[in-house]
Amino acid sequence: MKGEESVESFLWFEEESLGQARKFAVSESLFRGKSEFQQVEIIQTVACGRMLLLDGLVMCSERDEFVYHEMISHVPLFTHPDPKSVLIIGGGDGGTAREVLRHKSVQHCTMVEIDGLVIEACRQHLQQTACALDDPRLNLIVGDGVAFVANSQETFDVIIVDSTDPVGMAAPLFGESFYQNVNRILSSDGIVVAQAESPYFHPEQQKAVLSRMANIFARVHLYNYYNLTYPGNTWGFAFATKGLCPIQNLDLRRVEQSGLEMQYYTTAMHRAAFALPAFQQRALAECLSPLTL
Amino acid sequence: MKGEESVESFLWFEEESLGQARKFAVSESLFRGKSEFQQVEIIQTVACGRMLLLDGLVMCSERDEFVYHEMISHVPLFTHPDPKSVLIIGGGDGGTAREVLRHKSVQHCTMVEIDGLVIEACRQHLQQTACALDDPRLNLIVGDGVAFVANSQETFDVIIVDSTDPVGMAAPLFGESFYQNVNRILSSDGIVVAQAESPYFHPEQQKAVLSRMANIFARVHLYNYYNLTYPGNTWGFAFATKGLCPIQNLDLRRVEQSGLEMQYYTTAMHRAAFALPAFQQRALAECLSPLTL
Repeated sequence: MKGEESVESFLWFEEESLGQARKFAVSESLFRGKSEFQQVEIIQTVACGRMLLLDGLVMCSERDEFVYHEMISHVPLFTHPDPKSVLIIGGGDGGTAREVLRHKSVQHCTMVEIDGLVIEACRQHLQQTACALDDPRLNLIVGDGVAFVANSQETFDVIIVDSTDPVGMAAPLFGESFYQNVNRILSSDGIVVAQAESPYFHPEQQKAVLSRMANIFARVHLYNYYNLTYPGNTWGFAFATKGLCPIQNLDLRRVEQSGLEMQYYTTAMHRAAFALPAFQQRALAECLSPLTL
Repeated sequence: MKGEESVESFLWFEEESLGQARKFAVSESLFRGKSEFQQVEIIQTVACGRMLLLDGLVMCSERDEFVYHEMISHVPLFTHPDPKSVLIIGGGDGGTAREVLRHKSVQHCTMVEIDGLVIEACRQHLQQTACALDDPRLNLIVGDGVAFVANSQETFDVIIVDSTDPVGMAAPLFGESFYQNVNRILSSDGIVVAQAESPYFHPEQQKAVLSRMANIFARVHLYNYYNLTYPGNTWGFAFATKGLCPIQNLDLRRVEQSGLEMQYYTTAMHRAAFALPAFQQRALAECLSPLTL
């Protein structure tokens, strides 16, 4: 608190888990609604701009959503040599779709978000992430992602599972039968990336989802990212393919030629993200494919 | 809060800055004293074990201090080909000395901590970090690090500035005249590493200290680490040398032969730490020496 102005005149939003909490001073409540799935809120915070909360948990903020959305999108899209078709499961705030659609190679992107209220709230109050939801290349479906992958007859070059935590409605997105269907609709050089929790807060869940994926996909890796608003700071994405390697198949020239200006992603950050802290590397070793960094 | 037990029956310690705060449930106050420099406290937290606070700011916790102490120590000590003499400025909790002294090549380590009360409190209540303070290779001086480097006639292979934030008594540790003296007592293949704040919370301070160092040292780099208890998650260490490169001079075989079991540091994490998020790389580009990752 020293040398900095205290922000005592505001209400505070607080997210607590296991004896620690993060708090954000709130200057305005912009949206508050309840769908059949969850409580949806958008608040204006002092430190992080507008912030989307689902059931009282921070999903993203204007200040740091670039970390999550750039890393969930560009790591697979710059590993795949020519991604034309992309499927996003979840991702209702639109940030992942926004980053995917910056790739000119992408001809169509299907996004399946279960909760229309999240999309509606973000369209109204979180244009920073929702700004690409009307792109003509986007096929936006409000529906169940588990059912979609079970029934789809299309194939996709990249499938991104941009989900909440593996409790309640999102739990099936971490299960083996879901990934068997993902594998079925993934093209022969396809890549799947999935939100995979924190090595400090959810080490068992992280290992469980990677173990399941290791039963199905030829290669399974994990890469980390670090944002401002999630508990425990270090969070991971699972990365699985039918053969492509996130390091060997990263084409530096293609990244450069894309001309995309990033806030977080660089080719050095892409490679660095696959380096795991020693404790995490040991804990996950049996689930992960070998990787030369 | 969902699916997890709330910890409402405890008092909470809270650290606030600029509209956000972190809170830790506290089960016991173990030490509380005031030196001529600062308020020194050690608390038992539910989430992170024992925690050292200076003037109400988190310095380290038992749960995550390995991140900070391994990265501030092993990155320079595994870049230098044969570090024999090490100087630590600050570091009163002892964690940096503990990691430095794990290196068998180190014949003597001098540690200059300005506040004897920090050392006393950690000796009594934070043995996890203070456990190496009686090592016979350690010369522990309670005194002013700025005066020490101004007057010292010794030279050191590695100098580690393990300081608090650049306000109050620690401010001179971020200044140009301090680093001129550091340069004077640094051996010809020496390395200096210094706590260098957060790119999200203190971008100007980070740039300022690197600019000053770039005026003095042949090479200046920055590397990031990510712990559980600092605001903003991403924090950096400045890394400056008279010629050694933290990537080219990292000797993988020497790391392997050391046999040191780490919780965070690996050679892949060493290299990965020098990859900076795009916004940070752009902000600091003019201060940083070129680096091929």
